[in-house]
This record gives sequence, C-alpha cells and structure tokens, in this order.
Amino acid sequence: MEEKTLSSKYLYDGNIFKLRVDQVSLPNGKKSKREIIEHRGAVAIVPYDEEGNIICVKQYRKAVEQVVLEIPAGRLEEGENPEECARRELQEETGFYPAELKPVCSFYPAVGYSTEIIHIYKAEKLQKTSFMQRDEGEFIEIVKIPGKKEAIIDLIQKGDITDGKTIIGLMLTVFMEERE
Amino acid sequence: MEEKTLSSKYLYDGNIFKLRVDQVSLPNGKKSKREIIEHRGAVAIVPYDEEGNIICVKQYRKAVEQVVLEIPAGRLEEGENPEECARRELQEETGFYPAELKPVCSFYPAVGYSTEIIHIYKAEKLQKTSFMQRDEGEFIEIVKIPGKKEAIIDLIQKGDITDGKTIIGLMLTVFMEERE
Repeated sequence: MEEKTLSSKYLYDGNIFKLRVDQVSLPNGKKSKREIIEHRGAVAIVPYDEEGNIICVKQYRKAVEQVVLEIPAGRLEEGENPEECARRELQEETGFYPAELKPVCSFYPAVGYSTEIIHIYKAEKLQKTSFMQRDEGEFIEIVKIPGKKEAIIDLIQKGDITDGKTIIGLMLTVFMEERE
Repeated sequence: MEEKTLSSKYLYDGNIFKLRVDQVSLPNGKKSKREIIEHRGAVAIVPYDEEGNIICVKQYRKAVEQVVLEIPAGRLEEGENPEECARRELQEETGFYPAELKPVCSFYPAVGYSTEIIHIYKAEKLQKTSFMQRDEGEFIEIVKIPGKKEAIIDLIQKGDITDGKTIIGLMLTVFMEERE
C-alpha cells in the first residue's frame, strides 16, 4: 500500500506550519500528488481540579471565526519533550502546575493532509502558581466544566464542544476514570 | 475576543485545500497574522453490520507515512449535502448502502489552522451493492472491528487506532448505544 516519494517541493514556510507538495508513485505504478502540512506536533491537557472539575479555556479561533471551548493545548517547541511541553503550556495558559501527569493517548487530528500528532495528558494535583504567560496575540478565558460523563456527552451533543482534541481528551479520561 | 480581518492573501490553491494568510487586528488593537487552511469539509461514517461489527478501512496516509485504520470518510463535493455525501462515500469505499443514517456530531479537527468541519453519522441496515468506486490513487482494505466499548478503548490505548475522527466516531456511537 505504501507510496514512494519521487520529489518534494516546499511552497510555504510559516509560523505554525510548512506546506509541501510531494510527487509519489502509487502501489499500481501510477503517479500522484500529495499536499502536506508539516506541523511540529502539539500537546493537550485534561486538568482536573480538587472538586473533579476540568479546567478548560475559551478563545477566538480565526480559522472557524468563532470562540471555541477547548482543553489547554499548545505546540511543541523545537526539541521539546511532550511531557515538558504539557507542563509548560498548562502553566502558561492557566497558571496551574500539575504535580501529576499521565499519558492518555496520541492521535493524528487530520491524517489526510497534516503531519501533526497531538499527545494528550491527564493532569492532577494542580498547584496554583503566579506564573502565567500567554503568547503574543493569545486572549484566553478560563472555564470549568464538570468532569462527569453525562455532562460531557451533553455538551458534545448540544454542540457546545466542537473541538476534536477536546472531545477525545474529555471522553477518554472519563472512560479511564470509569475503569479505575 | 474577536479578531477583525484586515486583509487576506491566497498563497496556494490545491486539490484538497487552499492556503490563505490573514492579517488581523487583535482585541488589544495590535496586529497579527493567521495562517489558514481552507477546506470544504468532510463526512465520516460509523457503519454497523448485522453482527454489531463496525466496518473500517485501512489505507496508507502519506502525511504520516503509515497505514492507518479509519472509519470510512471523504470530502464534501461542491454544494453537496453532508448526508448525501455520507451515503456516497460509504458506498464508494465499502460497497454498502446505508438504509439508516443518524447524525452523531460535527467537529473541527484542527481548529488552530484549518476551516475543516467533519460531520459524523452512524449508519445501519447496510445493503450490499455491486457499486464500489475508489478515487484515483485510493487503495483501501476493509477491516471489521467489534462495536463494543471495551474492545474500542483497548484498540485506542494500544495505539492501533490513532486517527482523530475515528476515535471520536467510535467512542460517541458506543456511548450513544449505552444510553439507548
């Protein structure tokens, strides 16, 4: 099933991603073209507070032209380990440092055209720190939602949660809780 | 929180997406740049057979350089209604026509940089048709997985399912089954 790369051409080199077009040879010997977004990868965190709430963020997303409810997340820096990145991003976006971090899953958000992988962690034993630093141009509001299965499914089914990584992170952590 | 568009510039117009860079003014009056992939949107289908299995597909994905296990899916054609698209894609990829189609959820796979929305449907009462037509350059193998919660979570936790829309579609449909 594999496709062999015949040539690669970079067409854009931006802050968030690069755009590359590959010429490939298909299993049947024919040639085709693959349009690929090169992305460094990201982490997302499901942070539980002491009352069993999950700390989420709301921010305006230009791509979809609306304010979106999400779990805290951010891109890996060059050479950064995903767990370090998760601690850094959670603290920068919410001010909380997680004493405990457990891997939940790693997944590809847009396997058809993006190299991006997102590593999700569950964060517990949050310590409030004074450190909070947002990226230039990041305007974020903190929102708590109940860490309960029924409440989360309702939010998804009502269309209040529409972000892919957030649906995956919330559903998998409540499933894991149920199993423990 | 809204960002106003000051200007938009198209840098690439491909088969799968367009690339656009917007200059925006932020809530604090500063200016910034947003890199955006314009995508027409897609559907994904969770098709249940009579034995309670879910019909999935395996295909090589150049962006992540591996064979990926996914629920059937495809891009909307210009002006196409998502439900029509779901019936068409399921039939083209698997040969099954769904007599019953129920909406599961709609979500944004990559809210940070892509306009793409994916509409997920649960498909039942599948009718085997002789019609099966893959896109040029599509090599697909059909795989059945058990439509049971524990089996699905195991596949996700073992890393056998790594595609975002597939995790969301499978988990939400098994959750919905549990509730019924």
